Amino acid sequence: MPFTTCIRARSLSTAANRFGLPPTIRQILSATKVDEPIAVTGWVKSIRKQKNIAFGVLSDGSSPMGLQAVFRENLGERVKLITNGTSIYVRGNIVKSPGSGQDKELLVEDVEILGACDPETYPIQKKTHAPEYLRDYTHLRARTDSIAAMVRLRGHLMRELDRYFEKQGFAYAHTPILTTGDAEGGGEAFRIAPVPPPPNHEFFGHHAYLTVSHQLHLEALSHSLGRVYTLSPCFRAERGVTRRHLAEFWMLEAEWNVMPIDDPRAQTASLCDFVEGVVKGSVGDSGIIHGKDVDVLWRHRDVDSASEDVKLKRREALVRAVTTDAPWPKMSYSDAIRELLKSKQEWTFPVVWGNALQTEHEKWLSETLVGGPVFVTDYPAGIKPFYMRANPPVDGEDEATVGCFDLLVPHLGELVGGSMREERLDVLHASMASKHMDGERYGWYGDLRRFGGAPHVGFGMGFERLLGWIGGIENVRECVPMPRWAGRMIL
Amino acid sequence: MPFTTCIRARSLSTAANRFGLPPTIRQILSATKVDEPIAVTGWVKSIRKQKNIAFGVLSDGSSPMGLQAVFRENLGERVKLITNGTSIYVRGNIVKSPGSGQDKELLVEDVEILGACDPETYPIQKKTHAPEYLRDYTHLRARTDSIAAMVRLRGHLMRELDRYFEKQGFAYAHTPILTTGDAEGGGEAFRIAPVPPPPNHEFFGHHAYLTVSHQLHLEALSHSLGRVYTLSPCFRAERGVTRRHLAEFWMLEAEWNVMPIDDPRAQTASLCDFVEGVVKGSVGDSGIIHGKDVDVLWRHRDVDSASEDVKLKRREALVRAVTTDAPWPKMSYSDAIRELLKSKQEWTFPVVWGNALQTEHEKWLSETLVGGPVFVTDYPAGIKPFYMRANPPVDGEDEATVGCFDLLVPHLGELVGGSMREERLDVLHASMASKHMDGERYGWYGDLRRFGGAPHVGFGMGFERLLGWIGGIENVRECVPMPRWAGRMIL
Repeated sequence: MPFTTCIRARSLSTAANRFGLPPTIRQILSATKVDEPIAVTGWVKSIRKQKNIAFGVLSDGSSPMGLQAVFRENLGERVKLITNGTSIYVRGNIVKSPGSGQDKELLVEDVEILGACDPETYPIQKKTHAPEYLRDYTHLRARTDSIAAMVRLRGHLMRELDRYFEKQGFAYAHTPILTTGDAEGGGEAFRIAPVPPPPNHEFFGHHAYLTVSHQLHLEALSHSLGRVYTLSPCFRAERGVTRRHLAEFWMLEAEWNVMPIDDPRAQTASLCDFVEGVVKGSVGDSGIIHGKDVDVLWRHRDVDSASEDVKLKRREALVRAVTTDAPWPKMSYSDAIRELLKSKQEWTFPVVWGNALQTEHEKWLSETLVGGPVFVTDYPAGIKPFYMRANPPVDGEDEATVGCFDLLVPHLGELVGGSMREERLDVLHASMASKHMDGERYGWYGDLRRFGGAPHVGFGMGFERLLGWIGGIENVRECVPMPRWAGRMIL
Repeated sequence: MPFTTCIRARSLSTAANRFGLPPTIRQILSATKVDEPIAVTGWVKSIRKQKNIAFGVLSDGSSPMGLQAVFRENLGERVKLITNGTSIYVRGNIVKSPGSGQDKELLVEDVEILGACDPETYPIQKKTHAPEYLRDYTHLRARTDSIAAMVRLRGHLMRELDRYFEKQGFAYAHTPILTTGDAEGGGEAFRIAPVPPPPNHEFFGHHAYLTVSHQLHLEALSHSLGRVYTLSPCFRAERGVTRRHLAEFWMLEAEWNVMPIDDPRAQTASLCDFVEGVVKGSVGDSGIIHGKDVDVLWRHRDVDSASEDVKLKRREALVRAVTTDAPWPKMSYSDAIRELLKSKQEWTFPVVWGNALQTEHEKWLSETLVGGPVFVTDYPAGIKPFYMRANPPVDGEDEATVGCFDLLVPHLGELVGGSMREERLDVLHASMASKHMDGERYGWYGDLRRFGGAPHVGFGMGFERLLGWIGGIENVRECVPMPRWAGRMIL
């Protein structure tokens, strides 16, 4: 057979090599020894040309640290063509660097220009660009140090979160993006248009929406798999434009079954503990918080315009919060209301038991009262969704509350929200009725309780918000590579 | 402050315990010693009641192996209420099992019934259900052994893939689901409906679609991050209903920059090698292929109705393919056409150079000619997308080809497709013009080449197809927890 000539016979010992890619700059900087020859493709981040020599910094995106490359006289003609952003292929030897700032550098033997970059028209100049400017160049902005660090950090954080959940016995599950739910008619769900026209013909035979949360579907899986989580896209057609909202965002959601405990408030406290463990474990214990990408983000003014002093203090508080052994405080909604009333602040929104906490209240609780992350638990049933578990009444409180929490963190507000889920079918039905919901449509959700229901809990954490908090990034638009919000989607 | 009473002071030594959940059945089976007391919540998978004793198998979803639980006389009244699917909380001691089939079992001291399960109406009976029946109970079908194994396997596979990519220096990146692209007007993209009405008002100010592939956006990121991959949902509004197509599916896509090589065919061969490494590394070397979940899937008839004999042979061939040190064969499209013409088969679709390979051709190449996975490379430019890199002409071939491959595997067909991407701006523009594309709309894509372009490659692998291949699952609808296809979406 002629094609067998294409089969290149290889011994076992070369198999790993056949599958492997050449070392990245990150790997070269950490593992390559002096005098070893290397070859690398990358982009020139900066170049300083002198009469007989030139010094460049080369990046291949693998690390926030570039590779210093020294070009000598023999390469003069080609070096003339190199500008910031030029893509090059270099071969040479790793040598000990005489300069400060790096241990090693590359003494370039040969350079090939792969792609020129006209300095006159290149939109990414070697200076700090405003976030608004860079958003117009979504396809190029990952070439800046800060956006590249953010993208790497996203991936790194995802891996650490997965490791944490794996250790705790969770399965990663994929729940659907297209759903029958319209977020209870709240008008914040995107609908899928019938394709092709005519307009009366639906692809699925009925309306379809983009999911606003994976929780209900995850609950179905947790009633078999026990402990499940997902990190998945969610969509909200919110027209309000704030620095905390995107039309498309990623959310980490987890659902799991728990041991029965007589005291629901202890169950909620235990849920808060778990969430604290997720954040401290994946961000603090993992070392991410001390990593170079986080450092780049906090140092760059293009993702947060606050002053150096303010940022330094915020960053110290952040590191303390995710590495301390002390538990994050928990307080009930009722206690929070009492503290807000005692505070003598001038509130734009009145503080009344039964109303939702506004951003100004949340900020004051975490920034001023606690000075760090704080769990607020057991909110009034009237301002929370139907699926949260009803608390038994306590002395001194006439109104119904549910077993839930919001995790508030400084300069951001709500980072995580979660609750015990109502596993008692009759109580669930009563809750749906009180919110004028169509029980029929949620028959499947009732089935989860009807057939072997079990006490269970869950939470959702905005992934961009977590990233913004640990990276000191002001606007969630800089927490995702290609952001979409009301009125704005390029590419 | 009153809320400080909620702060439960804990020593460092209890911090891990505070964050940790109790052991799962998987952890109990692997780590708990005889005579240790345990407590666990789970579902009864089966129960055999005798006069003074009852034997149950308990699952909490963490493992395909259940925990055998022995209920003695003292629990008689409560045991009477236990049926398949009942959710219970048990406490007791792990003892050495006298029976065969397991080393340890749980001697139950106390049992609490958390959620009953009426055997008369419970849709999941203790027997093999047809896939079509189970699809009507999407919210409950993960309670079957095979669908639970599939969901766990998805998560496990994702983790192993990520580990492989991490070792190779890739960053995991999130590219958008909502895009401006409509898959080149092919009519297979879902459009986002304007919300709220009136219909002339678009949320983003222009049409928006659900992505059909993340490749173009990943290319933008690979021109900064160097090596990027994603595992993300993709959407195709294909009305054709086959066992290989879903309206919503997950695709693993990777893009990375490569060293310049003079011979493009060697570059493509090297790309094939990398893909072979991804599959062998994550499925074979990781041990997944020998895992219990894969075993459950191959043994259950509800995900593939083929005979035992046929399945055994297929499974052996699969294990060989993903664990062999021998490279998977590569053949050019032209060689494939020659082999098909020589085969003397009766083809439904004529074999003509320049036509796409049909499923019957792909199956014959991998199942009959090669008897395993095979890479077919260098397809005619006319049947491939605009972004694939043009090959230089070779002797004996008049027609233009592109540097690309499809990986064909037995009983499935195409598992992976990839190519070198055209990095030469003038050649890219000519390719777009020959396909009557609007170059203006892809200005941003051209910019990636205009400013520091570099030779790069990439591929896409259908995640459900990979799962179906390694799990011996006949239909992709059983490769995702809650499938959506033309005319069908529940929940």
